[in-house]
Amino acid sequence: MGEDVFENPSGSREEILAATYRALVEHGYADLTIDKIGDEFEKSQSLVYHHYDGKDDLVLACLEFMLEEFEAAMDDVDDEDPRERLEEVVDWAFTHSPDPERQQFFSTIVELRARASHDPAYREHFTRSDRVIERQLAAIVRDGIEQGVFRECNPDAVASALSTIQKGIIFRRTSADDTAWLEDVRGELEAYLEGRVYAPEE
Amino acid sequence: MGEDVFENPSGSREEILAATYRALVEHGYADLTIDKIGDEFEKSQSLVYHHYDGKDDLVLACLEFMLEEFEAAMDDVDDEDPRERLEEVVDWAFTHSPDPERQQFFSTIVELRARASHDPAYREHFTRSDRVIERQLAAIVRDGIEQGVFRECNPDAVASALSTIQKGIIFRRTSADDTAWLEDVRGELEAYLEGRVYAPEE
Repeated sequence: MGEDVFENPSGSREEILAATYRALVEHGYADLTIDKIGDEFEKSQSLVYHHYDGKDDLVLACLEFMLEEFEAAMDDVDDEDPRERLEEVVDWAFTHSPDPERQQFFSTIVELRARASHDPAYREHFTRSDRVIERQLAAIVRDGIEQGVFRECNPDAVASALSTIQKGIIFRRTSADDTAWLEDVRGELEAYLEGRVYAPEE
Repeated sequence: MGEDVFENPSGSREEILAATYRALVEHGYADLTIDKIGDEFEKSQSLVYHHYDGKDDLVLACLEFMLEEFEAAMDDVDDEDPRERLEEVVDWAFTHSPDPERQQFFSTIVELRARASHDPAYREHFTRSDRVIERQLAAIVRDGIEQGVFRECNPDAVASALSTIQKGIIFRRTSADDTAWLEDVRGELEAYLEGRVYAPEE
């Protein structure tokens, strides 16, 4: 799930959502205004005002779009090796020195999740997006078990654990000055996957 | 590390910090003002203004105080069984249906960590508090290895992993409507601890 979904926006809706994404990364949520989103949009700003009712409407539509694209991207790689697919998802959060844009995106997600604690629309989005992400992760684990490359484990529980530790990493990245812990956490996560998920090498 | 440190404040400083804590939990960080902190303080409000320079000064002092108390509390239980101590720390984040105060405290922590991404004073605090928490966790693991009740593992790496998953749980609690995932994550974490940390039963 990443920012690259906005690289080639097709049509006005995607261009508006890409503008929302850029404005969100640049200004953060608290300082975001619908005018700043309009500034990032290359076509007539009135299109933004016409179709969306305030900044939350735009931010939620943007998050929704990213989630849809994530689902589509995951469906596309259905026939790859389950272990490689799982490692790819795990890798995403561990990227060392992410570019400033991704770092800013992580911070914005933390800001929006904080908002979710008192805003039902955001809470609904994140509850659903957690479910989508975990359903995809569980599907990979299930494929791995069926193909005999993973152990008999509980796919939903493994998915929950992976998604929770991924959240911990994103959460911590926004507030930590060092990244030494990243390698430690990765090592322990690999040990967990070896002992609990990956089938032992014959 | 919890809110109970403010139950019996001794002296004006602790009373001011307890007032800050209550105001923070009640209003969240964004809506917090120094006046709202003064409202929670039973003595002369001028004491608050005299000793602290704005709301961030108070919030940081409050976080700092909680961290000191956490350290002192951990030192007090040095001679308990390492496995029980580790389980106690793990339990803290998993509490089902935490009272609304703790739930609100979790949300506030997420809000402040989001702030840390662009405020060096908060980033410095959280970087340090992560180190303190992990040093304490690593000390427990080291004790367990020395006493032969834990396996030969890397105490710092285990501490990093536990602290990161704990953050993931706190982060997720603020934005999820359900808690079914909690039991799943707990089960996987127990499996990790059994396979990687606790010595096998003889």
